[in-house]
Amino acid sequence: MSNQYLDPSLKIFSLSSNRALAQEIAKFIGVELGKCSVNRFSDGEIQINIEESIRGCDVYVVQSTSDPVNDHLMELLIMIDALKRASAKTINLVMPYYGYARQDRKARAREPITAKLVANLIETAGATRMINLDLHAPQIQGFFDIPNDHLMGVPILGDYFKTKNLYKDDIVIVSPDHGGVTRARRLADRLKAPIAIIDKRRPRPNVAEVMNIVGNVDGKIAILIDDIIDTAGTITLAANALTENGAKEVYACCTHPVLSGPAIERIQNSNIKELVVTNSIVLPEEKKIAKIKELSVAPLLGEAIIRVHENQSVSTLFD
Amino acid sequence: MSNQYLDPSLKIFSLSSNRALAQEIAKFIGVELGKCSVNRFSDGEIQINIEESIRGCDVYVVQSTSDPVNDHLMELLIMIDALKRASAKTINLVMPYYGYARQDRKARAREPITAKLVANLIETAGATRMINLDLHAPQIQGFFDIPNDHLMGVPILGDYFKTKNLYKDDIVIVSPDHGGVTRARRLADRLKAPIAIIDKRRPRPNVAEVMNIVGNVDGKIAILIDDIIDTAGTITLAANALTENGAKEVYACCTHPVLSGPAIERIQNSNIKELVVTNSIVLPEEKKIAKIKELSVAPLLGEAIIRVHENQSVSTLFD
Amino acid sequence: MSNQYLDPSLKIFSLSSNRALAQEIAKFIGVELGKCSVNRFSDGEIQINIEESIRGCDVYVVQSTSDPVNDHLMELLIMIDALKRASAKTINLVMPYYGYARQDRKARAREPITAKLVANLIETAGATRMINLDLHAPQIQGFFDIPNDHLMGVPILGDYFKTKNLYKDDIVIVSPDHGGVTRARRLADRLKAPIAIIDKRRPRPNVAEVMNIVGNVDGKIAILIDDIIDTAGTITLAANALTENGAKEVYACCTHPVLSGPAIERIQNSNIKELVVTNSIVLPEEKKIAKIKELSVAPLLGEAIIRVHENQSVSTLFD
Amino acid sequence: MSNQYLDPSLKIFSLSSNRALAQEIAKFIGVELGKCSVNRFSDGEIQINIEESIRGCDVYVVQSTSDPVNDHLMELLIMIDALKRASAKTINLVMPYYGYARQDRKARAREPITAKLVANLIETAGATRMINLDLHAPQIQGFFDIPNDHLMGVPILGDYFKTKNLYKDDIVIVSPDHGGVTRARRLADRLKAPIAIIDKRRPRPNVAEVMNIVGNVDGKIAILIDDIIDTAGTITLAANALTENGAKEVYACCTHPVLSGPAIERIQNSNIKELVVTNSIVLPEEKKIAKIKELSVAPLLGEAIIRVHENQSVSTLFD
Amino acid sequence: MSNQYLDPSLKIFSLSSNRALAQEIAKFIGVELGKCSVNRFSDGEIQINIEESIRGCDVYVVQSTSDPVNDHLMELLIMIDALKRASAKTINLVMPYYGYARQDRKARAREPITAKLVANLIETAGATRMINLDLHAPQIQGFFDIPNDHLMGVPILGDYFKTKNLYKDDIVIVSPDHGGVTRARRLADRLKAPIAIIDKRRPRPNVAEVMNIVGNVDGKIAILIDDIIDTAGTITLAANALTENGAKEVYACCTHPVLSGPAIERIQNSNIKELVVTNSIVLPEEKKIAKIKELSVAPLLGEAIIRVHENQSVSTLFD
Amino acid sequence: MSNQYLDPSLKIFSLSSNRALAQEIAKFIGVELGKCSVNRFSDGEIQINIEESIRGCDVYVVQSTSDPVNDHLMELLIMIDALKRASAKTINLVMPYYGYARQDRKARAREPITAKLVANLIETAGATRMINLDLHAPQIQGFFDIPNDHLMGVPILGDYFKTKNLYKDDIVIVSPDHGGVTRARRLADRLKAPIAIIDKRRPRPNVAEVMNIVGNVDGKIAILIDDIIDTAGTITLAANALTENGAKEVYACCTHPVLSGPAIERIQNSNIKELVVTNSIVLPEEKKIAKIKELSVAPLLGEAIIRVHENQSVSTLFD
Repeated sequence: MSNQYLDPSLKIFSLSSNRALAQEIAKFIGVELGKCSVNRFSDGEIQINIEESIRGCDVYVVQSTSDPVNDHLMELLIMIDALKRASAKTINLVMPYYGYARQDRKARAREPITAKLVANLIETAGATRMINLDLHAPQIQGFFDIPNDHLMGVPILGDYFKTKNLYKDDIVIVSPDHGGVTRARRLADRLKAPIAIIDKRRPRPNVAEVMNIVGNVDGKIAILIDDIIDTAGTITLAANALTENGAKEVYACCTHPVLSGPAIERIQNSNIKELVVTNSIVLPEEKKIAKIKELSVAPLLGEAIIRVHENQSVSTLFD
Repeated sequence: MSNQYLDPSLKIFSLSSNRALAQEIAKFIGVELGKCSVNRFSDGEIQINIEESIRGCDVYVVQSTSDPVNDHLMELLIMIDALKRASAKTINLVMPYYGYARQDRKARAREPITAKLVANLIETAGATRMINLDLHAPQIQGFFDIPNDHLMGVPILGDYFKTKNLYKDDIVIVSPDHGGVTRARRLADRLKAPIAIIDKRRPRPNVAEVMNIVGNVDGKIAILIDDIIDTAGTITLAANALTENGAKEVYACCTHPVLSGPAIERIQNSNIKELVVTNSIVLPEEKKIAKIKELSVAPLLGEAIIRVHENQSVSTLFD
Repeated sequence: MSNQYLDPSLKIFSLSSNRALAQEIAKFIGVELGKCSVNRFSDGEIQINIEESIRGCDVYVVQSTSDPVNDHLMELLIMIDALKRASAKTINLVMPYYGYARQDRKARAREPITAKLVANLIETAGATRMINLDLHAPQIQGFFDIPNDHLMGVPILGDYFKTKNLYKDDIVIVSPDHGGVTRARRLADRLKAPIAIIDKRRPRPNVAEVMNIVGNVDGKIAILIDDIIDTAGTITLAANALTENGAKEVYACCTHPVLSGPAIERIQNSNIKELVVTNSIVLPEEKKIAKIKELSVAPLLGEAIIRVHENQSVSTLFD
Repeated sequence: MSNQYLDPSLKIFSLSSNRALAQEIAKFIGVELGKCSVNRFSDGEIQINIEESIRGCDVYVVQSTSDPVNDHLMELLIMIDALKRASAKTINLVMPYYGYARQDRKARAREPITAKLVANLIETAGATRMINLDLHAPQIQGFFDIPNDHLMGVPILGDYFKTKNLYKDDIVIVSPDHGGVTRARRLADRLKAPIAIIDKRRPRPNVAEVMNIVGNVDGKIAILIDDIIDTAGTITLAANALTENGAKEVYACCTHPVLSGPAIERIQNSNIKELVVTNSIVLPEEKKIAKIKELSVAPLLGEAIIRVHENQSVSTLFD
Repeated sequence: MSNQYLDPSLKIFSLSSNRALAQEIAKFIGVELGKCSVNRFSDGEIQINIEESIRGCDVYVVQSTSDPVNDHLMELLIMIDALKRASAKTINLVMPYYGYARQDRKARAREPITAKLVANLIETAGATRMINLDLHAPQIQGFFDIPNDHLMGVPILGDYFKTKNLYKDDIVIVSPDHGGVTRARRLADRLKAPIAIIDKRRPRPNVAEVMNIVGNVDGKIAILIDDIIDTAGTITLAANALTENGAKEVYACCTHPVLSGPAIERIQNSNIKELVVTNSIVLPEEKKIAKIKELSVAPLLGEAIIRVHENQSVSTLFD
Repeated sequence: MSNQYLDPSLKIFSLSSNRALAQEIAKFIGVELGKCSVNRFSDGEIQINIEESIRGCDVYVVQSTSDPVNDHLMELLIMIDALKRASAKTINLVMPYYGYARQDRKARAREPITAKLVANLIETAGATRMINLDLHAPQIQGFFDIPNDHLMGVPILGDYFKTKNLYKDDIVIVSPDHGGVTRARRLADRLKAPIAIIDKRRPRPNVAEVMNIVGNVDGKIAILIDDIIDTAGTITLAANALTENGAKEVYACCTHPVLSGPAIERIQNSNIKELVVTNSIVLPEEKKIAKIKELSVAPLLGEAIIRVHENQSVSTLFD
């Protein structure tokens, strides 16, 4: 390893959700990943063995609670319990993707607030700090009482689009729903572009929803942005609507490529020219279609870990 | 009192933020307000005396943490402590307005998340349930682990606009900022209207912000909607922009009329034809200008208290 | 329904691990199962909707955290969160099988104590009481600070063997390992029988383990008893050793038929004449081989729920 | 700055109650005050910005919760929340004056114990240590579970009176009420003087209270001592009674000069020759009348902070 | 039993510190004491068996944590744990004497605050309410977050002295130390009497302490009052000093007769004419000397339990 | 002191249960025991004074909660409270014997789980780590959420028996009850020996218990092993049964020699040739009979403390 990080009290462990990213982060920092095994018994129970002493160390655990979310979450909680009982000095979670983030409020009667439940579980298990990336709602930071460093993916996405040398007056940044307008505005600022919103609504009961567009997209290159793309239904319908309303080309981007169920097929068949994502969630080989461009968040996460460890400001990462 | 509520274990107390509303709620339910005095010593300390036994009772405390927010919050916390030590069976907060709600995430480095701090303080003091109205972010529900019933003001505002018999094809509901589009859509659904967004942006550094409008307002009656109107700067600039972009008339509405500092003067001098608010925050006489229409949330809150007390569904209030 | 339980404040909900058992319990008590849906999104997240008001009710949730253990556990935690926020009066878990119970101590360096973690998660989520059946170690009761009613399966298993009219002097009850001798003695007391122990040991390093038997089994009908049979490796090797040491016939029994991986094949091919289990874990059709006899714990659990609900002693169930 | 403290991990921040004292403490120690802004929005909400990184630092926050007590307390709680989320290593409160300390027990039915509530709020927010000065009741230390260093003002007051060279046989130390006798005895020990007590009592119902004196004050120089002087009613009536009972001269002293409402006028018009106070609470210019002598507690607090920071004994400060 | 209390959900249990008092309370209320055995193994461990079902009951446990204080405290904590796990609805402690109450602050460096520790232990074990009598410092109420009803013994003591028909102008109530003056004043108010204070002080280092008296006792009947009399050193020296200063007769009284070590001998040999105490702590036969008069607090505690149980005001007991 | 430990932040304090062991541990490490006094007032209350500053230190408190268990436990809790308030950096309990460990589950209705209560009390008081030796049930580790290092006495006992040069084929290791077979197997592995079990059972109701033996002991040297020997009833009856079943010689061993009540007499009069114990519990002179051999655990505990303090692996102690 060319660059080697010298403080042995910094330890990075990867659980099973995203080992490639963890490896890349460790390499960026200049450490070997900590030794630990995560096994599944045939009855489904997870067994974790930390195979080196971590007494008195500052441990960073890299784990996205992506699909299978419950297994990845339980891995994480069990790991925290093991680290706590093994006398880690601090237990820092590096969670690029926070599963259940969309269940962040009671939208209907008697609903759980699972994103808060997850926060309570993590604090109960014994974590002492979180590093997150583009939480679905920034208020989720407040679900925690432990310190939280919240990183943003928009600069990475924005920088990529800048390299395409699209003429800025031609671009419009589009939010695929009502709740994502602030995010669209943030990317638009980076690219000096205007915004538009897909205003999905049902004109009358028992009539199909209409994909109305608020804002001007005619003759423009539209870039759809969301934090999470899951089944890709909303984003591909939005792309269609953009074309129907005169958009020349449609790009899409997101931080977290959940891409579950029919997502890949929908994207493949859609009029989206390119979908830009990050590696916050691992993209298995079968999902790596030509249309999808993956950007790495490892340098961002690695730099954040170093700054946290050395008591430097993390916020200046975004100045 | 014509209608009298028969279960003596239901007690309603008012603190000092909004006694008129509390009185109206009590009358709606059919109870007398509980006897309790809230005094200030000359050094600023608050002293609370509950002047009737509440052992074993279900107590509902009506208090908005409006300006002076710190005094109203401390009143509330002290009252909870007193009720807890006086053996109340349950301590239910009826907080139509939740102060500090806008500090709900770390927007910059080293910021507090004061809305979560307030939630922690309330739970520590000993409250057992919350009833809220239009929390600034619905995720604030998840800042609490005690049950929370979240009421919505949009139906009340919408019903009022329906009584005006505005022709619906003429209306456009406008969000004054990027974060309020979902709320605008919700009012728009009630009035079968399209939406538009004020897209405030700074074209270049060191250049004044521009009030761009995304969506079509030309020739329409625009209704601006926000949850909170504080200094009224945003809303009055938005109203100007709407007129400049061809809106025929501009209305505005919000649930929580904070209306601090220059707010009343700005509204008075603006092109806003009418500002519709609720009595979640008391409107002092000097702010009751002709342009402002105040709607009461007392029946909504009163009905919610009855349902909570009788173990009926609160959600069906909105079916 | 012939017998109908009259107190509407008792509600029983089933999650997805063992609906047949929940249904049987509900029928025993004389109530309909509460309405609630448990869905999985295509990205693996669980969504729970409680479809009837449970305000002020005593809710009993039937769920074994059997395979897939992490999904079943998260279902349970999410359900507890939903019930808590929906104002259930009490949240009572009926967990016939407690997953991760075998990870109940640090057997090696840096191991988690996952059974305690699970207890902490359940209490954090908001459960107010537990009803369990044959916990792997009775000390797991002490992992909780909420009340716990611990039911025993040995009487059910013992009563079944009594119906076989085996001559008691012919029987020996066998513990398949060193830790299960107390359980074997308890069944032996019911059947007035002696005990023996399989003393698995490795004579020298790098030499195969020997299945030694401590106690006399020659010419006897041996009944192996364990709390959990998982891959069935231990129990089938034990059965072989018993035959080799002169046992006439070998029966086996357990409360919790995990039966994962090669278990069914091993049992089918073993010299075990009959394996007696309970329905604490659902036995899917493909595992219902002729050799396996399933006994129901529904009357035991149902009676316990009634007694808990009516503030009667549960312990007298075992007098 | 002549003396400069060399460990950069010690940071001192001042909130808005007593910046002059904080400045004096910082100078004593040899550090600059940390940069942080405390603003009030026009609706009364407080916004705090910590303007330098404090990751991994030991932070000392100087704040008396004096009038306006609720604002000063909320400032403090919000600051703690911000420091916690910004990863301070320890959060140490330096509270020379603890507001609400007099509400330390249920004196009447259904009273809160606000001093305990305040302690709970401070611990919930995340403080890790307290440094206090002359708490109204020393038992308030036990309201906290975090470590507390309790400093005493009597030596400072006593040393001042020694400089006056009053002949000790002439002096009597007087407690203005029944609860302050121990404090009077402590000052009396320093000055080798006897004590007396003002025994305020009501001879019969509906008859005015009488300021009886227990002990001999005739021909003596009386020094009244209290921990807090608030409206100055008790102390000035006591001074009158002392003169009426033959005292030659009357001095008064206290640690915490709340001096609210009519206090300054009463003292000005009283027969008290000099009132000696500390700067635990800031004395605004309009209250700085000639009769009041202010002593600084900055060296005491500064020395305590250094000792805490360097793990030296604080108690030896008083040996 | 002539009067019988009809609500079977009220259960009273006695632990081993003061069974006679518990029996008297139970008789006052009209219930039988709950069946429970408290055993000691030969290695000193306590074993508690609750011998009747208490599911869903409101349980009142009568226990003074008097000598042997650690055993009595552990009995209490174990009983609370047992009641919690046995599903008591509420667990109410009736603690007439609160051991360790005098360790209520850090009087010297590195001292514990054992009275707060005890409060934390009691809350952790699971108690839901306290009923106390004359806590050493009323601030100990604030060591708890559970509701606390604080009863006062002064009326019982005062009423007894009234029956003696002492001419009130002849009486002086004397506090034996500086901290007890408020208590003395309270008794003095009941008897319309003046007060005096024993001002124990050391004139110079290495010189014996002098029992100075502040106030006039010459020719009077002095009644010394303290909350606790332990070794009786202070009280008997005070009595001597009173006689030396001209008191005609000396009585003494206290709520809690700890009377440890040489106490009985000292009292017997002192000039105290009568020592009046309550049965908050059991007085063994060998301590029942003629000089000691014991008054019962059973009616007071019994009435308080009834009022708590029936949600009536306890404070009105003292109106 | 020949070897001197150089890091002054490591402090070892002894309470009163086992000062000799603490002294031996301190000598092994190379430090002086910290200065602290533990006094009992004549009313039984414990007073602890820590007589040197421990601010910022890692403090190790050596205390077995042996008889008198309640006093030793309260000493420990009070010491933790004092250390916490005196600003110890970490509070590490070295508890060779954990009293109340046998009350680790609800064996009967309405029993407490006192071992868990003790764990809760210790965590509430403020301990940050535990070092234990042969906990009665290893699951007790899971009663704690703080890190726990669990040491084993079997190697010490085994090594001693190896020095006796007993021919291994002659030995049988015997568990005196059903629950101790795993422990017997562990010692048997060290000595390459087979095992046997005492199978105490009652053939019929109202018939005396029979000491049956499962396994072969005829002509062998039997070594009984238990974790705790309390009244020595079980072990001496077991020894008799072994002799009656043909054992040549009977040894016994345990980690924790509680030896209460008739224990010493029973052992003296038994056929046990030698009883081997450790000094986890102090053996008073009158119990040091010739038959009892005491082995020291001081090197084991001392080495564990050093490893904990220096962040080395403790588990490798047992490799």
